[in-house]
Amino acid sequence: MAEAAERSRRSRGGGGAARRAERTAVSVETARYIERNIPNFEILTEEALDIIEANAETILEEIGVNFVENPAALERWREAGAEVTGERVRLPRGLARKLMATAPSRITQHARNPERTVEIGGKSLVLAPVYGPPFVHDMENGRRYATIEDFRNFVKLGYMSKWLHHSGGTVCEPTDVPVNKRHLDMLLAHMTLSDKPFMGSVTEPSRAQDSVDMCGILFGEEFVQQNTVMTSLINVNSPMTFDDVMMGSLEVYAKNNQACILSPFIVGGAMAPTTVAGTLTQVLVEVMAGIAYSQLIRPGAPMIFGAFVTSIDMNSGAPTFGTPEAAHITYGAGQLARRLGLPYRSAGSFNGSKLPDAQAAYETANSLNVGLLAGVNFMLHSCGWMEGGLVASFEKFVMDADQLGTLHHLAKGVYMDENGQAMDAIREVGPGGHYLGCAHTQANFKTAFWRSDLLDYKPYETWSEEGARDTMTLANARYKKLLNDYQQPALDPGIHEALTAYVAKRKSEMPDAFS
Amino acid sequence: MAEAAERSRRSRGGGGAARRAERTAVSVETARYIERNIPNFEILTEEALDIIEANAETILEEIGVNFVENPAALERWREAGAEVTGERVRLPRGLARKLMATAPSRITQHARNPERTVEIGGKSLVLAPVYGPPFVHDMENGRRYATIEDFRNFVKLGYMSKWLHHSGGTVCEPTDVPVNKRHLDMLLAHMTLSDKPFMGSVTEPSRAQDSVDMCGILFGEEFVQQNTVMTSLINVNSPMTFDDVMMGSLEVYAKNNQACILSPFIVGGAMAPTTVAGTLTQVLVEVMAGIAYSQLIRPGAPMIFGAFVTSIDMNSGAPTFGTPEAAHITYGAGQLARRLGLPYRSAGSFNGSKLPDAQAAYETANSLNVGLLAGVNFMLHSCGWMEGGLVASFEKFVMDADQLGTLHHLAKGVYMDENGQAMDAIREVGPGGHYLGCAHTQANFKTAFWRSDLLDYKPYETWSEEGARDTMTLANARYKKLLNDYQQPALDPGIHEALTAYVAKRKSEMPDAFS
Repeated sequence: MAEAAERSRRSRGGGGAARRAERTAVSVETARYIERNIPNFEILTEEALDIIEANAETILEEIGVNFVENPAALERWREAGAEVTGERVRLPRGLARKLMATAPSRITQHARNPERTVEIGGKSLVLAPVYGPPFVHDMENGRRYATIEDFRNFVKLGYMSKWLHHSGGTVCEPTDVPVNKRHLDMLLAHMTLSDKPFMGSVTEPSRAQDSVDMCGILFGEEFVQQNTVMTSLINVNSPMTFDDVMMGSLEVYAKNNQACILSPFIVGGAMAPTTVAGTLTQVLVEVMAGIAYSQLIRPGAPMIFGAFVTSIDMNSGAPTFGTPEAAHITYGAGQLARRLGLPYRSAGSFNGSKLPDAQAAYETANSLNVGLLAGVNFMLHSCGWMEGGLVASFEKFVMDADQLGTLHHLAKGVYMDENGQAMDAIREVGPGGHYLGCAHTQANFKTAFWRSDLLDYKPYETWSEEGARDTMTLANARYKKLLNDYQQPALDPGIHEALTAYVAKRKSEMPDAFS
Repeated sequence: MAEAAERSRRSRGGGGAARRAERTAVSVETARYIERNIPNFEILTEEALDIIEANAETILEEIGVNFVENPAALERWREAGAEVTGERVRLPRGLARKLMATAPSRITQHARNPERTVEIGGKSLVLAPVYGPPFVHDMENGRRYATIEDFRNFVKLGYMSKWLHHSGGTVCEPTDVPVNKRHLDMLLAHMTLSDKPFMGSVTEPSRAQDSVDMCGILFGEEFVQQNTVMTSLINVNSPMTFDDVMMGSLEVYAKNNQACILSPFIVGGAMAPTTVAGTLTQVLVEVMAGIAYSQLIRPGAPMIFGAFVTSIDMNSGAPTFGTPEAAHITYGAGQLARRLGLPYRSAGSFNGSKLPDAQAAYETANSLNVGLLAGVNFMLHSCGWMEGGLVASFEKFVMDADQLGTLHHLAKGVYMDENGQAMDAIREVGPGGHYLGCAHTQANFKTAFWRSDLLDYKPYETWSEEGARDTMTLANARYKKLLNDYQQPALDPGIHEALTAYVAKRKSEMPDAFS
């Protein structure tokens, strides 16, 4: 199926069009994924972690989890030594942990541009944009259903965002494209409009297969079988239910050596107990059962310990974001993931606001900071999230993407070499002096401090003369400028052609479905 | 001088007016100061801390610090064993540390309402409002010079703010009152419009003495000599310069057993080196010299290790807030303070924005979260700060004060008792169930999750029908409601009368001064 691409790959560098495309491509600056040089924040004691782990084993053994409408999964569990009753799977103590041992602790996810390949695990942090909103929002037009044009614009913004390492997946739902075909257009956009790594489709096993096949065209089929080129999001139906669609997609990815995030989807008080320790226990149960299952499909399948966490407002039932309870869970789940030796996904630009205003920013900053200190390795939703995930905001996308710079600088830690100690500077300046002109400052000022590319640092008078713009207004101008400056990264025309042909062929094979 | 008050104190409870005042007083809910049940974030290794401490001793010994226009201070230093040349004071290795040993590790600051007395030190965190802005800002009127009416309104808002433990000091500068008299009006407002603890004046030694004398009326003179009833802010002229006004005020407070924050005022790159380790070294030098000096005035004088830190935008020279570099310094200075066994002041609602918008909230949340995890014991500026400290914003005051609730809940840590583990809930609900109705949720939902009193949790449609208000607009309504609901806390009329008389007498003794 990838013949055109294979032909093209073999002749790479031979085509005049390809050479021209590569020569004229604008190189957009992208920061390397974060490698932390700071400790993690460990909120739970060893004793507390032991209790949670023991309770999780008790639940796996005595209560079990459900694998729904998936007889093959039940059969696999039976063979592995679990007790299966109806759709309920109970795991003897230690079984899940033993099975999970083959999952790798660090995942290299390749991008088509090797400079943008990311490492997920250890001290790394990879930042990916918002995932899933059916609506978009911008300052002029307000809130409206997302289209494929919006989707493409977000992929372009992600490509242009210096602190974003990953192009993400369903950055918004292109609701103007049939449900059963939109994954094709989304994948094509990630593959052709960006050169950053991306996610595959999980809404049907056949769509996961399309994702694998299109990656075969982009990277070469053999490369895909030997390397991870997608990280896809498998949500658990919390509490403790694994449905056939998600598990079917997981099976496709695991078989093809592609990474999945196994992610409990927790609205505390609704899908999990109201307490932090109880929620952590359930998260651990779900992750252990799901990742153990992935290793039954293919030992060594790359998997990520996920935890999507929000609280609930007990007055209204609304989910709430950037809360202290979500922070506790995010910190604790990080510790549990590290004890299992698994990469960890959590946190994001979470907020419940309807506008990119102060509420949005407080809640987002709370969650982003927690994510860094919790040892998160893969942060989905790191920019653009609004209104509880219903909305992808153009302004908030660039606001958050700018703030992600602070995480990069925080993660650097404190330099203690001679230049860091700055004793010469203190000697030179002395009591009552001024550092601006001293030699040490001159040598360091360009890299010393993080600087926003968006926020306003001007004096009041200048700011006032320039129209007294708030952050939303500044962000509106910035996202338009980024889209205006966007230039498509070079791609071998043969590959591009083969991808387009694949999408056209697959679309022609299916009638449109809108639900 | 406090005769009327003393008379009144002796007859307390006897006056009909006093009884009436106490009966009709509305009890405003105020949270107890935070006692953390979570670890601190330790960004520096022991080795790094050793290096910084050794470098600080080297600077104290070889470079020294300046005590400006203060011959008595130089004489005290000489007697204590320092080498004094001109105004330069050099301290032999170990001298500062030896002198500091008498400073207490924990300070009880009494409020006139004993329920609002705070502990500063150990695992505590006391939250106080913004300090010092010459301007105020509100949504309708924009930015304008602050007046005594604004000041009184901020004191009222502080009194009405549940998560604020402290009434602060110069919440804004009442620029319509003569410079040499405004401290009297400010103190009177803190003492009569609130019953939370407060700060004294530091702009002249005589004003510090007025502060002590007015506290003598409010608390009784003997009580003041035996207890700490004020915590006042002594800034260092960084780098390494101690001026006579600040030191004169420090001397008054130390002699009278009142607490001071000894606070380097650092704009990184200007008043300190561009590097984190270099800045921490200078901060340590300044704090050690200043607190050692306080112990020469009175061994045992209560002192707080302060660190006011901002970065500089090297493009424009503007100070920047909520930055990663400020976070590093705030974390590191906390470690240095704990190694000295001193209470620690840092962080706040810092931001450079001109409006209470997303920039203000990102930068503020960054700093508030750092403050909690850095082990800060006294957080000045915890709400209301805007535009680099030039402005106290009415809307941002209540926005930040609401967010301070998240710090209280974060600090609680994770409950690991049987109720926290929630095994019964997980058993009751099981795979595929729902927690909202279960017994454990019913028993816990009221206290399980932090809930904002300001932010919007409503569905989009409701929010839209109600006028699509942003956070600033919600905060505008909230601050007006709080001022409208405000009721003055009861105070013995004799004391009130004596305070008013003191202010009138002192004002009559001085000509007005406006600079």
